[in-house]
Amino acid sequence: MSFEKEYDERKERFENYLNSFIGGLGDIPEPLYSSIAYSLVGNGGKRLRPILFIIAAEMFDAQETESLLKMASAIECLHTYSLIHDDLPCMDNADMRRGKASNHKVYGEDVAVLSGDALLNMAYELLFEAVSLADDDIKNNYIRAAKLISELAGARGLIAGQVVDTAVDTGKHISARLNYIYQHKTADLITASLLAGAIVGGATEFDIGRLREAGDNIGYVFQIVDDLIDFDKGEDEDKNTFVKIYGIKEAKRAVSDRTAMALTQLSALNKDTSFLRTLVKNLSIRKN
Amino acid sequence: MSFEKEYDERKERFENYLNSFIGGLGDIPEPLYSSIAYSLVGNGGKRLRPILFIIAAEMFDAQETESLLKMASAIECLHTYSLIHDDLPCMDNADMRRGKASNHKVYGEDVAVLSGDALLNMAYELLFEAVSLADDDIKNNYIRAAKLISELAGARGLIAGQVVDTAVDTGKHISARLNYIYQHKTADLITASLLAGAIVGGATEFDIGRLREAGDNIGYVFQIVDDLIDFDKGEDEDKNTFVKIYGIKEAKRAVSDRTAMALTQLSALNKDTSFLRTLVKNLSIRKN
Repeated sequence: MSFEKEYDERKERFENYLNSFIGGLGDIPEPLYSSIAYSLVGNGGKRLRPILFIIAAEMFDAQETESLLKMASAIECLHTYSLIHDDLPCMDNADMRRGKASNHKVYGEDVAVLSGDALLNMAYELLFEAVSLADDDIKNNYIRAAKLISELAGARGLIAGQVVDTAVDTGKHISARLNYIYQHKTADLITASLLAGAIVGGATEFDIGRLREAGDNIGYVFQIVDDLIDFDKGEDEDKNTFVKIYGIKEAKRAVSDRTAMALTQLSALNKDTSFLRTLVKNLSIRKN
Repeated sequence: MSFEKEYDERKERFENYLNSFIGGLGDIPEPLYSSIAYSLVGNGGKRLRPILFIIAAEMFDAQETESLLKMASAIECLHTYSLIHDDLPCMDNADMRRGKASNHKVYGEDVAVLSGDALLNMAYELLFEAVSLADDDIKNNYIRAAKLISELAGARGLIAGQVVDTAVDTGKHISARLNYIYQHKTADLITASLLAGAIVGGATEFDIGRLREAGDNIGYVFQIVDDLIDFDKGEDEDKNTFVKIYGIKEAKRAVSDRTAMALTQLSALNKDTSFLRTLVKNLSIRKN
């Protein structure tokens, strides 16, 4: 099967689960329910993080159980909430997201704040359900994976990156600041996805270490390629990006170097990493 | 020991833990760290919910372990995040909270949004730490309690109440709407605190059922007394409160009826509920 076909099939399977999960949520008042559904399932996305999580878990022989799919959905809820809050007028003030109106442009700022809160909280409802449902012999793996996700999503992870990205002056040198933002705002949740999958599957500490390094490199590749795409489209005017600071040539070199490092780190695992390596190569040359 | 002295001692013990927890958090960038500390530990509060949680847990013979204190802190983080987001300009637009400037008046709207997010996420970091540290024989109690907290804090609990409180027109009759808001926005987290404590302590399903009824009544008492205090101070101008809709006499009657119900429900437990019952009586006659 071609890589593209396998990715699309994985994406479709995950989205089917996500749709049935959202469809089965009762008792959420309007307009909160519609707003959550709009951003989580009505607004597309690559589903990169939940797919990375599932691939990593399967690489380490975890089964595709209800617990696994709940944890994958939790990661997507975290990603989606961070986008809704990032787009708010007091943050990036973005009217559009993935070619459609951003959440607050459709539902208003108050509902957008609360929908983000609801998705953040829902991520943890899902993680506790995943832990509750997990078989006894792997329950501690699920607890450890969920704890790691919570750390990398929090005030020392994703949110740390958002704060430094938002703050006018943090006293950091511009390159150190950019590095901090890319590490936390982008790489942390990507790394968390890979590590959580590996931990659920019972990976060794050696393999977890290699995956952490690879995850961080994949995060940087993903973000710098995003910057290059934004530059091509002329959509990076108000942003401090790698391309802006170092130029296109350096940006392309960083993508190439980081991709090579990630591939080497993945190859060091005693597992079949072929699908994951192809995914990383494709991320480095994507155009949207 | 007098009730007041015992309450104050419990509050001080909890706050000492919370202070050392916040003091020990490294790696959170400014101004996020200061903003979190400002609202969580610099801004007072009764600490009602964590104290209810600890009292309930001790009633059912749970030990005051690190896990217990982490769960209590998680509950206070949830309460504090909800206040920061409630005060935002796009929500209640409140300049003051507990006699001091609200979070966004000090740190700006962007940091206030992210601090709320960080506290919400931190609640779950704490809950997963609590679960991880819990002894094997009560780990499942901690998982069940944390899962229940996550449900009552989420889109079908606390946040549901916030959305209906914010929405201009939800199609609900005004009394049904008020009831919905009081149930979810106020009572759910109070009930969650009592139930989580009882579950951690291994309470029977019968006792959990009685505590759920009592918790909901305590939540209503707490909110209607708040309304009466706001009315006395002339601070309820823009709010739809129980006092506004039904008048003072009915509000006082509701407090008295709900208090009596809560006391009866608590008396049905096969435990020493004397401290909790005195707490409920004091809540019903408080003046601030």
